[in-house]
Amino acid sequence: MNISFFNELLSSISDRGRALLDLSIGASRETIEELSQALLTSRGEASGVALGRQILDKYRQLEDDAKLAFFKFLAVNFVPESKSVSEAASRYLFDPGEESLRTLVRAVESPKQEYFRRLNLAPGATANIVALRADLLRLVGENRDLKPLDRDIEHLLSSWFNRGFLVMRLIDWNTPAAILEKIIAYEAVHEIKGWRDLRRRLEPRDRRCFGFFHPSLVDEPLIFVEVALTDSVPGSIQSLLQKQGEGETPLIRADRDPKTAVFYSISNCQPGLTGISFGNFLIKQVVSDLSREIPSLKTFVTLSPMTGFARWLIKYLETATDNISEQQREKLTFLVSGDRKAYDDDQDLADIVLPLAVEYLVDAKNASGQPLDPVARFHLGNGARLERVNWRGDLSKKGIKQSFGVMVNYLYELSEIEKNHESYVNEGFVAISKSVRQLSKQSLAGSGNQFGKLRQSNLSHSK
Amino acid sequence: MNISFFNELLSSISDRGRALLDLSIGASRETIEELSQALLTSRGEASGVALGRQILDKYRQLEDDAKLAFFKFLAVNFVPESKSVSEAASRYLFDPGEESLRTLVRAVESPKQEYFRRLNLAPGATANIVALRADLLRLVGENRDLKPLDRDIEHLLSSWFNRGFLVMRLIDWNTPAAILEKIIAYEAVHEIKGWRDLRRRLEPRDRRCFGFFHPSLVDEPLIFVEVALTDSVPGSIQSLLQKQGEGETPLIRADRDPKTAVFYSISNCQPGLTGISFGNFLIKQVVSDLSREIPSLKTFVTLSPMTGFARWLIKYLETATDNISEQQREKLTFLVSGDRKAYDDDQDLADIVLPLAVEYLVDAKNASGQPLDPVARFHLGNGARLERVNWRGDLSKKGIKQSFGVMVNYLYELSEIEKNHESYVNEGFVAISKSVRQLSKQSLAGSGNQFGKLRQSNLSHSK
Amino acid sequence: MNISFFNELLSSISDRGRALLDLSIGASRETIEELSQALLTSRGEASGVALGRQILDKYRQLEDDAKLAFFKFLAVNFVPESKSVSEAASRYLFDPGEESLRTLVRAVESPKQEYFRRLNLAPGATANIVALRADLLRLVGENRDLKPLDRDIEHLLSSWFNRGFLVMRLIDWNTPAAILEKIIAYEAVHEIKGWRDLRRRLEPRDRRCFGFFHPSLVDEPLIFVEVALTDSVPGSIQSLLQKQGEGETPLIRADRDPKTAVFYSISNCQPGLTGISFGNFLIKQVVSDLSREIPSLKTFVTLSPMTGFARWLIKYLETATDNISEQQREKLTFLVSGDRKAYDDDQDLADIVLPLAVEYLVDAKNASGQPLDPVARFHLGNGARLERVNWRGDLSKKGIKQSFGVMVNYLYELSEIEKNHESYVNEGFVAISKSVRQLSKQSLAGSGNQFGKLRQSNLSHSK
Amino acid sequence: MNISFFNELLSSISDRGRALLDLSIGASRETIEELSQALLTSRGEASGVALGRQILDKYRQLEDDAKLAFFKFLAVNFVPESKSVSEAASRYLFDPGEESLRTLVRAVESPKQEYFRRLNLAPGATANIVALRADLLRLVGENRDLKPLDRDIEHLLSSWFNRGFLVMRLIDWNTPAAILEKIIAYEAVHEIKGWRDLRRRLEPRDRRCFGFFHPSLVDEPLIFVEVALTDSVPGSIQSLLQKQGEGETPLIRADRDPKTAVFYSISNCQPGLTGISFGNFLIKQVVSDLSREIPSLKTFVTLSPMTGFARWLIKYLETATDNISEQQREKLTFLVSGDRKAYDDDQDLADIVLPLAVEYLVDAKNASGQPLDPVARFHLGNGARLERVNWRGDLSKKGIKQSFGVMVNYLYELSEIEKNHESYVNEGFVAISKSVRQLSKQSLAGSGNQFGKLRQSNLSHSK
Repeated sequence: MNISFFNELLSSISDRGRALLDLSIGASRETIEELSQALLTSRGEASGVALGRQILDKYRQLEDDAKLAFFKFLAVNFVPESKSVSEAASRYLFDPGEESLRTLVRAVESPKQEYFRRLNLAPGATANIVALRADLLRLVGENRDLKPLDRDIEHLLSSWFNRGFLVMRLIDWNTPAAILEKIIAYEAVHEIKGWRDLRRRLEPRDRRCFGFFHPSLVDEPLIFVEVALTDSVPGSIQSLLQKQGEGETPLIRADRDPKTAVFYSISNCQPGLTGISFGNFLIKQVVSDLSREIPSLKTFVTLSPMTGFARWLIKYLETATDNISEQQREKLTFLVSGDRKAYDDDQDLADIVLPLAVEYLVDAKNASGQPLDPVARFHLGNGARLERVNWRGDLSKKGIKQSFGVMVNYLYELSEIEKNHESYVNEGFVAISKSVRQLSKQSLAGSGNQFGKLRQSNLSHSK
Repeated sequence: MNISFFNELLSSISDRGRALLDLSIGASRETIEELSQALLTSRGEASGVALGRQILDKYRQLEDDAKLAFFKFLAVNFVPESKSVSEAASRYLFDPGEESLRTLVRAVESPKQEYFRRLNLAPGATANIVALRADLLRLVGENRDLKPLDRDIEHLLSSWFNRGFLVMRLIDWNTPAAILEKIIAYEAVHEIKGWRDLRRRLEPRDRRCFGFFHPSLVDEPLIFVEVALTDSVPGSIQSLLQKQGEGETPLIRADRDPKTAVFYSISNCQPGLTGISFGNFLIKQVVSDLSREIPSLKTFVTLSPMTGFARWLIKYLETATDNISEQQREKLTFLVSGDRKAYDDDQDLADIVLPLAVEYLVDAKNASGQPLDPVARFHLGNGARLERVNWRGDLSKKGIKQSFGVMVNYLYELSEIEKNHESYVNEGFVAISKSVRQLSKQSLAGSGNQFGKLRQSNLSHSK
Repeated sequence: MNISFFNELLSSISDRGRALLDLSIGASRETIEELSQALLTSRGEASGVALGRQILDKYRQLEDDAKLAFFKFLAVNFVPESKSVSEAASRYLFDPGEESLRTLVRAVESPKQEYFRRLNLAPGATANIVALRADLLRLVGENRDLKPLDRDIEHLLSSWFNRGFLVMRLIDWNTPAAILEKIIAYEAVHEIKGWRDLRRRLEPRDRRCFGFFHPSLVDEPLIFVEVALTDSVPGSIQSLLQKQGEGETPLIRADRDPKTAVFYSISNCQPGLTGISFGNFLIKQVVSDLSREIPSLKTFVTLSPMTGFARWLIKYLETATDNISEQQREKLTFLVSGDRKAYDDDQDLADIVLPLAVEYLVDAKNASGQPLDPVARFHLGNGARLERVNWRGDLSKKGIKQSFGVMVNYLYELSEIEKNHESYVNEGFVAISKSVRQLSKQSLAGSGNQFGKLRQSNLSHSK
Repeated sequence: MNISFFNELLSSISDRGRALLDLSIGASRETIEELSQALLTSRGEASGVALGRQILDKYRQLEDDAKLAFFKFLAVNFVPESKSVSEAASRYLFDPGEESLRTLVRAVESPKQEYFRRLNLAPGATANIVALRADLLRLVGENRDLKPLDRDIEHLLSSWFNRGFLVMRLIDWNTPAAILEKIIAYEAVHEIKGWRDLRRRLEPRDRRCFGFFHPSLVDEPLIFVEVALTDSVPGSIQSLLQKQGEGETPLIRADRDPKTAVFYSISNCQPGLTGISFGNFLIKQVVSDLSREIPSLKTFVTLSPMTGFARWLIKYLETATDNISEQQREKLTFLVSGDRKAYDDDQDLADIVLPLAVEYLVDAKNASGQPLDPVARFHLGNGARLERVNWRGDLSKKGIKQSFGVMVNYLYELSEIEKNHESYVNEGFVAISKSVRQLSKQSLAGSGNQFGKLRQSNLSHSK
């Protein structure tokens, strides 16, 4: 391997970026639509770089309505010729051989794909195309006819942003401010309140932050995850986010080696890459790298929110009658306001809420039969195990409101991931720990509700 | 732009590469075919990185016959289901709307594409896939049924190796030996005879060498071009390749600024990327960068061989009778042996050969109607102008044998390239200089041969 | 030159730093004084690295009184043996040849120098020695007997921090946060109020910041200068420091090239390097580099405070009677309170104050005959020209208090610097511009004060 | 630590180097002596960088006789004023206090030191000053009056090249060719025969090469050491240097971890740094770093020549009579011709030669009482232990000639180094292994020669 040589390579990327600015002066008189047409002709073959640059220059100056018009232009004009497709389809039906298939493949390929491939010749184009898709996604909601255009771009981007091309990178206090600024802006789970707060999450020896980057998007993290190194599996997010100024306790004592790595926040950064999944790869790579760097680490676990739990529970209470007193019912309904004091006053709710939390995570499914909870869907889909539900896990107003303060630990055990994922995908089974099974039985025993059956079969597979 | 931060990113690439070696020990007991099947299932979703690594590990240990079997396995098994394709084709014919098209697109997509996308998750996979395709190209000659497999891989690679992801890099005497070693090995035009010779081509201030690199193939140039900086357009390759040891003359005097950049050798390095064109972009980028770096440069020109000229001429002589004496005919036929002395003895041949060289470059076409000469095809296709043909351009045995020592200059004038390319692609016209036109007329005047007509219309467009 | 290779070199520096932390565990039982003694013996030859590390480990844990004791130990014990010095001195007087001189040189060399040279073998030692000297300088005020110790360390550091070993570096928004944090902390002239303010000084295209770094102090700027790029020479610091958020005017219009580079703040960062001058070199290097980078820049000028002007003027008014009304006298005396409103109310003061400002800068000298004003002393000593004094240059309270809001431009014209410096050093002449000369004459004409004579001779040399 | 930021710093070093070339055009009309005089005046304060550059420009163009004249100029003119020295010496004798000492120190300081400190301000100066000293050392042999000049430069360089500023760097096949070329050129012990041979020493996984570099001499290794990783301590250099092409055995089997690191060649690269010792630090740092990188390594040992053994032995034979037959005496005398066949024929010599080899290493001293053998002097002085002498260690002609093919292993055991060094320095004792002691006794028992006594006391201290 040959790092140092390649390091210099990248200056070219940078230089190309700069050149972009320099040369954008001599703007074309042609419209963006004319330039786009030209890009797909032989002129595009000869001058793809220049045409691409001009198109992107023009695009950046468009207002939303002009962007919409441009998108519609692409959507309408850059489509496979239906005559060719029909001919190729007929031919295939008549003679379904390799040659016919090939003709058919060529006939159906969207010219938009070639269009964006050529657009990408321009310096710094990839970042611009990602930004363009972010615009498109904003506009596609009210313009469903742009959906195919979006699909074409997504297809291309998922090829370009294949995990094989991503680079994982430690983000710490020596990272350039221009990147860190984006970490502050992109943090989606537990807000970072300025540079001091950021420093607390990056600098202490019991903290880590990793991101994926792409060689053509040098300045932009694609996704990042924040990690805390601790003794044991934590149940409370406030204990992790507490300030670590002078006189405060670090997460691990200076003379001890950390045993547990806690993923307590994971944020996607690029709206333009929506639908292209990085989180799964990022977590597994971090598990693998941290294992090597810090051999004392034995447990890799998340501390995750249950974003839809309270909403689900309130609705559930409307139908379920058994085992929950009217008073408790009222109390729970009130807590959705996020009142911390009311929450602190009642210590008994845990016995009711925690079994239901398990029920929510394990049994509540959406229309596609997947867990209703998006975070559960993500981690269970990755092959993680539902390890623990924690009372008083998030005592912020938001935490009480959305999940009565309950937080969840999902466990990433590398040796189990494949098996868990396959059971989950193929049979719909959720891997759960003993403690979760215990809670699950409580809920089951008392309720006899409609989820019972599924969960029972489920439990027999859990460990 | 943010170079230094990104520089460190790349260490991860390197580390992943190393990890590859470390972890390849625990090899799987499954066959490469079983692993490949698994990669396309949900197991592949969960463990794509590990499966990909195992597949590539196994692949690297295969002999050619096992590779062939593996390729056939992929070619036979990972194809669109013909039933689905037929259904989708029928549906499209019945209702040719967006929805049907989408179904059809999905039905025809080759599972091989998804297979290789997942394979690319493994660390260092891209380089391995490029190597795999090089194997495939070796074997496809006698196994035409593998052609569709090759087309799928080529399609994917041309997306991954889009020029937007390539990085141009100066290659000089400070480049790591591991890269330079490859430059020596890959030089395809004018052999580099060891490290001393290499140094002569890289180190003097009147030399440059640039290559394209890909962030996922850190150690491997994809293509490189060697450049000499001179006062005027050179006609002789020996004058450029002469040794520049002590007491020898540099190409430009120490107190003068270079006016001309000469591209005298361009070599593709990756057989596995055959069919994916980089040369066009590389030359134009070098023109653009050198213009900025050395403002005194006004002329960008190649010094190129005519690899098929002698062969063509001998054949041509068999039919053409006019204007060439029997003696000259014999002389030419003899020269194909590469005899330098005979070549030196006869100074008059230039007047006969040079007009025919122009005829060969401008008029001789292959079956697809493109120039017979591959080098002409490349440069004229790029939009370059046929600038000059040079007698005694290459006095090596090889040079005399293949082109009676004639070499060609193609001129890259950025402002003309687009126009030239379009005339060339759309109308088949070749851009030529005045001096070439002059030679062309001589040939024309005397011969009245079958190329006359085309060339005349052609000439009216040349400048 | 060979950058990329060397880049990797530096990882070793970093690694050594890390090793320092790792290995500091096995601390020695010997006292810092015993270890220091050992360092100068043959044990120090064999184990200098380890001993040095232990000494520095111990040093970092000392309180101020223990540091003082340690310094006194060094000061008392590591001195030339007076017997050897006396002998060598006698011998020299008897036979003043080369051999005697050499013996004498050896006899007088302070063992502290060798001590600190050996101490520097330890990983990361240089930074620690700089920090140690900062401690020493704090304590030397009340412990004048430590002065010789300080002189020895200063001598060594000025050799190690020779400008030839310093590296100038652009500091911008892509600089690591760990460095930027220090820029905020070290800014000594115009306070940086947090990260937003910092960004305003680094990021816009009309801003630059450069610092000197030393290869063995990787994380620490030694000195930095902030530069604004403008059309013309600015007279007001507020116009440069204004917020540049949305809707605000940049210093130069987007379509214009900057003509002037303004050095508006220069800050030393390392108390431990007091007395070792970097500012002169930094400014000249920035002038040279910016000239090359931005050829449109023609003028390099400071915008500088006059820190002692008001104090001097008030004192001056006590003796001078002519030309200043009692009212004006009272007004000036009142303004020293920094009252902005009173300042704004009186527009006439400029005519009185500006000539006196020139008088202060040009004629007021300290005991050593150098300009009383430290900023003037620095820039004039560097060979800059006193270019302009500006009324309403700094309207902050501090600005009004210390200089009635007057700010100064010193001009760095590379072709004049050497001549100016020599006149200044050898003859005490100050280079001044025409406009300053004009003001000077006003002051002169009206006052006939004691400075008249010096300034007249002076003026005849100014341009 | 903050590597990536600093990496970019270094580009400045490179840029300064380049600027040097650019700006050297406007050469001064003053002589190098005039410029040198100016450098020490106030002009030098203002324009030190420019003056330094001009002096170095001029210096590089001087022939040897002009260099000699320049050196003499420096030696004669830049000396302490003897009047000041005498006064200061008298004053000290009269009043030997701190103040007098300080005056004396200042009076005796050589102006050459300040001269070279100022010279070093110029870009790239350090490398030039090192080169200048190399010239000086060539010339000082016949011009002993330049010795004081050399001492002044050496003093300065030993401060600048303090180990604390050196950076250790792995040199491998990814190192820039410009550096590797120098490794080939500088290898002083076992010649590297071109790039193929170099590759064999750098690339296999059982090889390492490390060098020290200085941040201001980016392109130049100062010293490097070649290391082989093996199972056990090797006794033969040919077994290490054998070609490792196809079909050849690597030094360690692929499935085994190396246990021994063998330093088989160490070369100083900079004649201009003669007298400034790096080897000791380099070996210890490599031992420390390799221990961490490859925990299986337990033994660090050299394989070293005995450059003066044969010469010493032949001389020894002239006086010693006992125990050596006339035939053996003749044989040994003949072997000094380097005849390999004669060497192979006689297997019995080992018993005679090896004990004498130990005697040579342990007892033979030079005028200063240090080991006569320079390699032994170096390693024993570093605190290494004389571990083994090897018959048939170097079967090259050179090896037979200089040491009857005997090679030596010196063992670096970190925990013993300090003790060994101190015994060596303070008491003259040499640390030896049991096997060496055994040989030593043989020699002792039989000979009763004049070294007996010393060695006996010595042995009682060895382990």
